[in-house]
Amino acid sequence: MISLPKVVLVVCDGMGDLPNPAFNGKTPLQVAKKPNIDRLASEGICGLLHSVGGGRVPGSDTSHLALFGYPPDRYYTGRGTFEALGAGLNLERGDVAFRCNFATVEKEGEKLIVKDRRAGRIGDEDAKQLAKVIDGLEIDGVKVIFKHTVEHRAALVLRGKGLSWKVSDVDPHDAVGVPILTAKPLDETPEAKKTAAVLNALALKSYELLSKHKINVERAKKGEPQANIVLPRGPGIYENVQSVQERFGIRAACIAGGALYKGVAKYVGMDVHEVEGATGKVNTDVMAKGRAVLAALKEGYDYVFIHVKGTDNCGHDGKFEEKVKMIEKIDGMIGLLLENAGKDVYIALTADHTTSCIKKRHSSEPTPFALWGPGVRVDDVKKFDEFECAKGGLGHLQGIDVMPMFVDLMDKAHVYGS
Amino acid sequence: MISLPKVVLVVCDGMGDLPNPAFNGKTPLQVAKKPNIDRLASEGICGLLHSVGGGRVPGSDTSHLALFGYPPDRYYTGRGTFEALGAGLNLERGDVAFRCNFATVEKEGEKLIVKDRRAGRIGDEDAKQLAKVIDGLEIDGVKVIFKHTVEHRAALVLRGKGLSWKVSDVDPHDAVGVPILTAKPLDETPEAKKTAAVLNALALKSYELLSKHKINVERAKKGEPQANIVLPRGPGIYENVQSVQERFGIRAACIAGGALYKGVAKYVGMDVHEVEGATGKVNTDVMAKGRAVLAALKEGYDYVFIHVKGTDNCGHDGKFEEKVKMIEKIDGMIGLLLENAGKDVYIALTADHTTSCIKKRHSSEPTPFALWGPGVRVDDVKKFDEFECAKGGLGHLQGIDVMPMFVDLMDKAHVYGS
Repeated sequence: MISLPKVVLVVCDGMGDLPNPAFNGKTPLQVAKKPNIDRLASEGICGLLHSVGGGRVPGSDTSHLALFGYPPDRYYTGRGTFEALGAGLNLERGDVAFRCNFATVEKEGEKLIVKDRRAGRIGDEDAKQLAKVIDGLEIDGVKVIFKHTVEHRAALVLRGKGLSWKVSDVDPHDAVGVPILTAKPLDETPEAKKTAAVLNALALKSYELLSKHKINVERAKKGEPQANIVLPRGPGIYENVQSVQERFGIRAACIAGGALYKGVAKYVGMDVHEVEGATGKVNTDVMAKGRAVLAALKEGYDYVFIHVKGTDNCGHDGKFEEKVKMIEKIDGMIGLLLENAGKDVYIALTADHTTSCIKKRHSSEPTPFALWGPGVRVDDVKKFDEFECAKGGLGHLQGIDVMPMFVDLMDKAHVYGS
Repeated sequence: MISLPKVVLVVCDGMGDLPNPAFNGKTPLQVAKKPNIDRLASEGICGLLHSVGGGRVPGSDTSHLALFGYPPDRYYTGRGTFEALGAGLNLERGDVAFRCNFATVEKEGEKLIVKDRRAGRIGDEDAKQLAKVIDGLEIDGVKVIFKHTVEHRAALVLRGKGLSWKVSDVDPHDAVGVPILTAKPLDETPEAKKTAAVLNALALKSYELLSKHKINVERAKKGEPQANIVLPRGPGIYENVQSVQERFGIRAACIAGGALYKGVAKYVGMDVHEVEGATGKVNTDVMAKGRAVLAALKEGYDYVFIHVKGTDNCGHDGKFEEKVKMIEKIDGMIGLLLENAGKDVYIALTADHTTSCIKKRHSSEPTPFALWGPGVRVDDVKKFDEFECAKGGLGHLQGIDVMPMFVDLMDKAHVYGS
C-alpha cells in the first residue's frame, strides 16, 4: 500500500498578540527565541489566519470548528456540548449540555446568594462524591447526567424530548455576593421555556440535596466553604454531524489537554489520545504531547491535531514574559516534530486567535500561520510572527479553507467539478 | 466611567484611481503631495479595500452600506430611500422613494418630449414654490410627499399600502429630445404594477399642474425653460433596519455634504451633523468638516464617519490635476485629525471605490486603506497609494469586515462563540 502524505496541525491557543509598548512595541512571538519555529517558517510558506473570518473575534470553540472544516455559522450549537464530550460523556442527538461549577451559596430570605463561585476550589475527591447526588436525577421527565471533571468543575447533560440550548445561564459568572440567576428562555419556543424551567428546578434541587450531604456537613465543621449548589452555564445542543472520516476520508487524532478542544475534536469524529502530563495549562508537558504526535503518525493517522493552551492563559492574564517562555517551550516540541516527523509529513503551525497581553482578551487580528513540508511554495519569510507572516505567500487565509487545503496535501481531495 | 477607544472613518469618494499615461503612468494619489496622509500610512497598517467584494464595481450606496457593516446583498433596497432620508424626509416602512428632476418637456401629439432634463438648472426659489404643488397630492390612495433639495433636484416619496420599488424610471436620463419614459413594473407582482401606474399618473399630473403654474408662466415670458414636469428615477423602498447602536452598541455620527451619504448614515441610525461649508463638491470646506469630527469625538461619539465627495467628482469629469489638488486639500484635514484626535482614537482612511480619471466611472479595482492608532501592527508601508498599500499588513480587506474590525477596536465586540 502506498503511504499518503500526512498533516500535523499545531494550534497554540491565543499565541498571536499585539505590539506591546512595555516591550519596545514587540509581540511575544517577536521577543521569544524560537529557532525551530523560525526554521519551520523559513523553510515553509507563511500567511495570516482569520480563523472565523475577517473582523470577527474568535471564540475557542468556533475557531476550532472552522479549522476542522466545519463552518461555525452552520455547525456551532453552543459550548456545553464540547465541554461534555471533552469530559468523556457520550451524547445523543438533542441532548443539551452545560458547563457547571460547584459553588457556595447562602440563603438570605428567599434568595440564594453566591459567596464563592468555586466552593473554595473544592478538591477532586469531595467533588466526585457530591456529583453522584446529581447524576441520575430526573426532573419533569428529563434525565440528568452529571460528571465531575477538575476541581470545582463539572459537565451537565439534560436528556429528554423537546429541549433547547436557547436558555440563559444560572451562573452569575464573576459577580460576587449576588443571587444566582434564573435561567430564562432566549426565544419563544416551548422547548426553550421547558429547558429553562428544568434548569431552574435542577439548581434548586441541587441546593436541597447538596446542603444536607455529609461531605458538606463535614466541610462546614472544618470551616471550609460548602459546595452546596451546582451553577450551569454555556449551554449547547448536540447534533450528530458527519465525521472528518465521512466528509474528508481521513483518520484524525487529537492531542490536547483542555476538555473543550478534546470535545470539539470528538464532535467531528477525531480519536482523542490521552497524554500523561497534558494539563491544558502552562505547566503542560509539551514534549510528551510532541511524542504522542509522532506515535499517532506511526499508528497511521492521516491528520494529527495538537493543541497547546498555555499561550492563551498568559494572554488572558496579561503575562507577556510568561507567554514568551511558553512559546520557547513550544519551540522545543516543534524541533522534535521537524526532526522526527519524516518525509511526506506536513507541519502547520498557527493559533486559533490573537489573545492580547494588553487587552487580556481575544481580539480580531489575524494570527501567524506557517506550513512546512514537501513541495510547498517556500516564500521569503524567515521569522514566525505577526509582521513577517503578513508578507508570506499564503496571504490572508480563512479558517474554513485550512482543512480543504490539508485534505488536498494528503492526496484525499476531490476535484470540484471535473 | 472608563473611556473606550473611538474610531474615525474618513471616506474620500472615488479617491482610488488607475495609472494614467498622461502623468507618467501614475495615479493622483502618487502625484499628490500629502505628508499627513503618508504619515498616517507610515505610522499605521495598510491594505487594499474591496468595498463590495472582489471584482464588483461598487455603487456609492452599496459601498457605504458595506462599510457600515450592512451586507448590501441583504440591506440594499434602492437608492431613492437614501436620497430621501438625506434630504431630510422621514420615512416609514414600505415607503417607496425616488430622486427626481424638474425638467422641461414639450407636448408633441400625445408625447411629452424632454427638451431640458434640468429645466435650465432652475434656481432654488422657483423650484421650492413649484414643489408645493406636488407635495401632498394623492393618487389612487397613495400619498405623495415631495421635497425640493438643490437646483433642479428633489426627493419623492410614495406612501401607501402595497407599493414596490421594482419599477423602471420615468426619467430618460441623458437622452435629449426623446419622450419621457413610461414606468414599467420590473416583476410580476401587483405591487410593482400598482406603483408603476401611480408613478406614470403622477408624472402626467405634475405636467398638468406645473404647466399652468404662475412661476412657469413668468419663466416663459422671460424666455426661461419651464420646469413643467417631475421626472422620477432610482426607486428605493424603506425598511426599518436595526441601527448601529442596536447592532454594534456604538453611538455614531456622520459628517458629509452629499445627501446620499447622509441618507445611508441616517438609514443605519447615525446622527447626521450638519456642517456649514460642506457642499459635497470640490469647493467643500474640508477643514470645517475636520473640526466637526473633533467636536463629535468630544461629544462622546464612539464612531465618526466623515465623507468627502470632491475626489469622485474629479474622477467622473476626468480631471486628474483637480483630483490631485483635492487630495492635497484633504491632506490638511488629515493633519488636523492626526494632531488633535487624541490617544485612544483610531483613524482609518480609504475610498468607497476607484473612480478612474481615464474611464470616468467607478471601477472594480480595490482602494488603498490605512488604519492608524494605538497598538496597530505597523507595517512597512510608507506611502498611501494603490501600489504601496498592496504590500500592507492588512492585505486585501472586504468592506463588510471593516465595521466588525472597528467594533473590536472600540472594545465593543462580542466573542463569536466562547
